[in-house]
Amino acid sequence: MRINAFSDVCLRVLMVLCADPGAELLTTKDIAGAVGTPYNHVSKAVLKLGNLGLVDAVRGRAGGVRINAAGLTVTVGSVLRALDEREDVAECHAANGDCPLIGGCGLRGALGRAREAFYAELDPVAVSSLARPRRSGPVAVTLATRPAG
Amino acid sequence: MRINAFSDVCLRVLMVLCADPGAELLTTKDIAGAVGTPYNHVSKAVLKLGNLGLVDAVRGRAGGVRINAAGLTVTVGSVLRALDEREDVAECHAANGDCPLIGGCGLRGALGRAREAFYAELDPVAVSSLARPRRSGPVAVTLATRPAG
Repeated sequence: MRINAFSDVCLRVLMVLCADPGAELLTTKDIAGAVGTPYNHVSKAVLKLGNLGLVDAVRGRAGGVRINAAGLTVTVGSVLRALDEREDVAECHAANGDCPLIGGCGLRGALGRAREAFYAELDPVAVSSLARPRRSGPVAVTLATRPAG
Repeated sequence: MRINAFSDVCLRVLMVLCADPGAELLTTKDIAGAVGTPYNHVSKAVLKLGNLGLVDAVRGRAGGVRINAAGLTVTVGSVLRALDEREDVAECHAANGDCPLIGGCGLRGALGRAREAFYAELDPVAVSSLARPRRSGPVAVTLATRPAG
């Protein structure tokens, strides 16, 4: 089992922004370099994190993104809950029709309870507690080991 | 977050075989119809379940698959642990290189503990307890709502 790719990117973006909350605004390109993830994916994640009220964006030539007070205290559990909102743990409802077993199936309920245990473990873990502060220089220089694709 | 597609198919195949353990052998085609999943996916799942010692296969024209004693008592947690063996919860190690944050990242450890909580919730749940016994007729007739693709 794993978290979905979009949640993964959102958590990494938050971690980069939390690592140095007093720093200058970071551009999406900076962040993409820091998390080693394509620009387009990071751009969608930044937009979603803005909609969730966890980052602030400043438009314009000198614009960029920074973490806000809510982002600095948000937990991994609540981020994943917010992003997983409509997702089944197993593919009970597929594009080509529901699973034939769905009527008498106890798997979905069991997996739902297990997912709740997964989130509960992450509910006390602040995203900001997972990020290591940068020592110096821009994120793209200190963290990136390859260019964003 | 969700379980991977292969684990999903393996659990459904086990559920179908557990639903009527005293029945005649089921062919892979029967099972594919019952779980609404393409034949090739089900075939790989049956092979894997055989390797895990949870089902017995009988070769030949009148051959097929049936659940064995280990399969009747196996739990969802242990099936998922066996199938997830080498998988990260997040994509720390991608095909195009490791995540740049990996050095000082606390996310991986936190997600690993959450995965353990997920499994622990499923460790007491026998797969056979999730399956509803068939009332009559072959699985493909009573459960399938669409042909296997």
